[in-house]
Amino acid sequence: MAEQITPREVSYSDWFVDIVLKAQLADYSPVKGCMVIRPRGYAIWEKIQSHLDRMFKETGHQNAYFPLLIPESFLHKEAEHVEGFSPELAVVTHGGGEALEEPLVVRPTSETIIWSMYKKWIQSYRDLPLLINQWANVVRWEKRTRLFLRTTEFLWQEGHTAHATREEAEEEALRMLHVYRKFAEEYLALPVFYGRKTESEKFAGAVTTYSIEAMMQDKKALQAGTSHFLGQNFAKAFDVTFQTQAGSLDYVWATSWGVSTRLIGAVIMAHSDNRGLVLPPRIAPTQAVIIPIYTKKTVDQVADYAKRVFARLTEAGLSVEMDLDDQNSPGWKFAEWELRGVPIRVEVGPRDMEQEKAVLVRRDTGEKRAVSVSRLPEEIPVLLEEIQKTLFRRAKDFRDEHTHYVEDYDSFKRIIEDGGFVFAPWSGSPEVEARIKEETKATIRVLEFGNEEKASGKNDILTGEPARHIALFAKSY
Amino acid sequence: MAEQITPREVSYSDWFVDIVLKAQLADYSPVKGCMVIRPRGYAIWEKIQSHLDRMFKETGHQNAYFPLLIPESFLHKEAEHVEGFSPELAVVTHGGGEALEEPLVVRPTSETIIWSMYKKWIQSYRDLPLLINQWANVVRWEKRTRLFLRTTEFLWQEGHTAHATREEAEEEALRMLHVYRKFAEEYLALPVFYGRKTESEKFAGAVTTYSIEAMMQDKKALQAGTSHFLGQNFAKAFDVTFQTQAGSLDYVWATSWGVSTRLIGAVIMAHSDNRGLVLPPRIAPTQAVIIPIYTKKTVDQVADYAKRVFARLTEAGLSVEMDLDDQNSPGWKFAEWELRGVPIRVEVGPRDMEQEKAVLVRRDTGEKRAVSVSRLPEEIPVLLEEIQKTLFRRAKDFRDEHTHYVEDYDSFKRIIEDGGFVFAPWSGSPEVEARIKEETKATIRVLEFGNEEKASGKNDILTGEPARHIALFAKSY
Ligand SMILES: [Zn+2]
Ligand SMILES: [Zn+2]
Repeated sequence: MAEQITPREVSYSDWFVDIVLKAQLADYSPVKGCMVIRPRGYAIWEKIQSHLDRMFKETGHQNAYFPLLIPESFLHKEAEHVEGFSPELAVVTHGGGEALEEPLVVRPTSETIIWSMYKKWIQSYRDLPLLINQWANVVRWEKRTRLFLRTTEFLWQEGHTAHATREEAEEEALRMLHVYRKFAEEYLALPVFYGRKTESEKFAGAVTTYSIEAMMQDKKALQAGTSHFLGQNFAKAFDVTFQTQAGSLDYVWATSWGVSTRLIGAVIMAHSDNRGLVLPPRIAPTQAVIIPIYTKKTVDQVADYAKRVFARLTEAGLSVEMDLDDQNSPGWKFAEWELRGVPIRVEVGPRDMEQEKAVLVRRDTGEKRAVSVSRLPEEIPVLLEEIQKTLFRRAKDFRDEHTHYVEDYDSFKRIIEDGGFVFAPWSGSPEVEARIKEETKATIRVLEFGNEEKASGKNDILTGEPARHIALFAKSY
Repeated sequence: MAEQITPREVSYSDWFVDIVLKAQLADYSPVKGCMVIRPRGYAIWEKIQSHLDRMFKETGHQNAYFPLLIPESFLHKEAEHVEGFSPELAVVTHGGGEALEEPLVVRPTSETIIWSMYKKWIQSYRDLPLLINQWANVVRWEKRTRLFLRTTEFLWQEGHTAHATREEAEEEALRMLHVYRKFAEEYLALPVFYGRKTESEKFAGAVTTYSIEAMMQDKKALQAGTSHFLGQNFAKAFDVTFQTQAGSLDYVWATSWGVSTRLIGAVIMAHSDNRGLVLPPRIAPTQAVIIPIYTKKTVDQVADYAKRVFARLTEAGLSVEMDLDDQNSPGWKFAEWELRGVPIRVEVGPRDMEQEKAVLVRRDTGEKRAVSVSRLPEEIPVLLEEIQKTLFRRAKDFRDEHTHYVEDYDSFKRIIEDGGFVFAPWSGSPEVEARIKEETKATIRVLEFGNEEKASGKNDILTGEPARHIALFAKSY
């Protein structure tokens, strides 16, 4: 048998770790809180990167690269920013065998170093907008870490844009929120709720933080991407002004936005099952795996047949692997490739060979169908899209089933306790938000756009005061 | 006028810095020795990455990602390795507000952390070969830095492979040397000498280091890529053994190989001229720029015509920019886009418009030709390939003109003094190598394959002792 993984029902967190380790997506490293992303995991990141990078470029952004190490004093220039990140910093104190005059922090995020450069590059409205993205590693000293979801070092992209007007910057922050939403839904097959964060949950240094929130199979929320309208906070901290078209001087308006390798964790947790990884086809590095089913007499012929099918699919531009091993049984191989999350299994046995056919087996449903080999180059892409849609639909049904609207605190507590998302009226008071968090561990994930209107006439779930929002509450990663 | 750059003849190093800064390829950062790679520079790196990554995958390698931070003790496990890298380390001593029990170094290269993982992953010959590459940032504390060529932080790729036999590992190290040579010649238009490094010049921890060496326009050598056969050094340091097919236990054999953002510096230095950057078309992010030539009455029509040409070229899959600005003169724009290194200028004026033509101007030679718009989608790719070939030929002619074979030390010293590469007989003595370096600043760049045969009957250039090698000497970056 292929390696066993702990069933979800027995331990959700062991199930997750088992999939990550046994599908060889990542491994623990000797450096506390840091993981190694193994080839099968990194290939998913490459798929995510290639789609997102295209979407960023289609919306006018260019990539650049800024230093890893940031003078410690830079973080102090924006008061909320330093307060937010100070507890998480890794600090370089020695370089080239000598103590540094000023310590350098390993970037936890790059607003400060980037805005110190924008000061050099921006003088006039003609230099705006400046639409830059960076693919990079960042380090945040985390006390409790989890593979992919929260690691001391992680890979991400961080967009940093500069604009002449408040409106344009706000538009950009929303544009990128929608790029993330679209990417999550169409590529990761993750339905998301989206909107803005409350004051207590927003990014350190932002005026407004927007996020997308997905439900995992344990009914907890996972923040899958954030986009920040930074106002003029960083422009003021780094004194970045520009000459407006009218000739006056103004501070530049800013946004930043990012997603990380955490998305891989989200995808694993949202779609996988007790047999292992389930991957949305659009981000699956391998779309199909060919497994020959040998009988003792037919090993050579069936292997040749498998190779012909492999060649045909590869020529058609499909990304295919083939498992020609003749030691392990077909059943063992089926389990192994299911564990690895390849969306389609292509079985070819002696009888299929005679009929010039193959059997396609879906990873998501187990459904089988026999198809002529000549039809495979058309059938497989169609089937991949069906799987993609099924995964999205399944995740959405699950989420909707576990998302409730309530108006009384007892129901609220019960649902949060059982697991699920709760929309509930909220007064807008940070004290209420804090007390609910303390009592239930649920936080406000987002305030959806237009939620205020729906709150009219409702009463705060905790205090009964007039509600100003319908907020989405959940326990989260 | 577009911004002036210092002529090569006045100051080669100012010329280089001017191109980097004024073509907006990179900028100095507030962190000592670290640079910012700006979008126009980073786009070149993206081209380099995409071609190399494909070549790595075609030779069976997969990408992965290992931690940035390495326990300091790991470097001490391989004696030569720690000696080589200790003076260059950046050290993290504090994390999350507390002093670390063991300092972590920011990776200067990843052999140690990777081999600590290979110990977990390799048990049997069935786990081999392991062919992994990583795209990453690294930090080496450099005393004297130069944009692109030597920076404290730089971007690179590092391949790390593990093999069951010495022969297979040696083959791999040579395979990757040839991948680098091919990439340098066919994509960067850089002719290179290649071979192995002497003992004193090899990588700290390697058994053999191979490199490719290109000549810059100041006739100095630039090491553009290295591939190392590491023997069993790291396997022994990290106790990585495997069960052989015969059932015995053996240490694993290793290679590592890398190229970095230094390649961008090499390309700039090898091909550019006094008008600015010259880029080989195959790594030019923008292949052609369309510049409308307006007369006062024709601005709108010519702009429309330019847009039509732009649409046609973009549809044909070409990467094109367009400069529709109507404030700057055509001459100003010509200079600006020459500075930026776009290989082909497409001029469209009122007369071209009448004839449905455009004038193509080569960045490398200034040569012009009028072409029907309908023919552009075929003509431009052909012209780009001509430019690619011309740049290679020009660089090769220049290099060959300044590469000499000598047998007497006076000629040797004169050529090194004037600038150039010198092949000369060498006894193989490290003392001779050191004395030549001290007296002339020239180092042995490589010992070409088969050089030993050519040395037969020759005498060492310095001592007159019997020569064992014909070595390539040069001053270098
Ligand atoms: Zn501080
Ligand atoms: Zn030490």
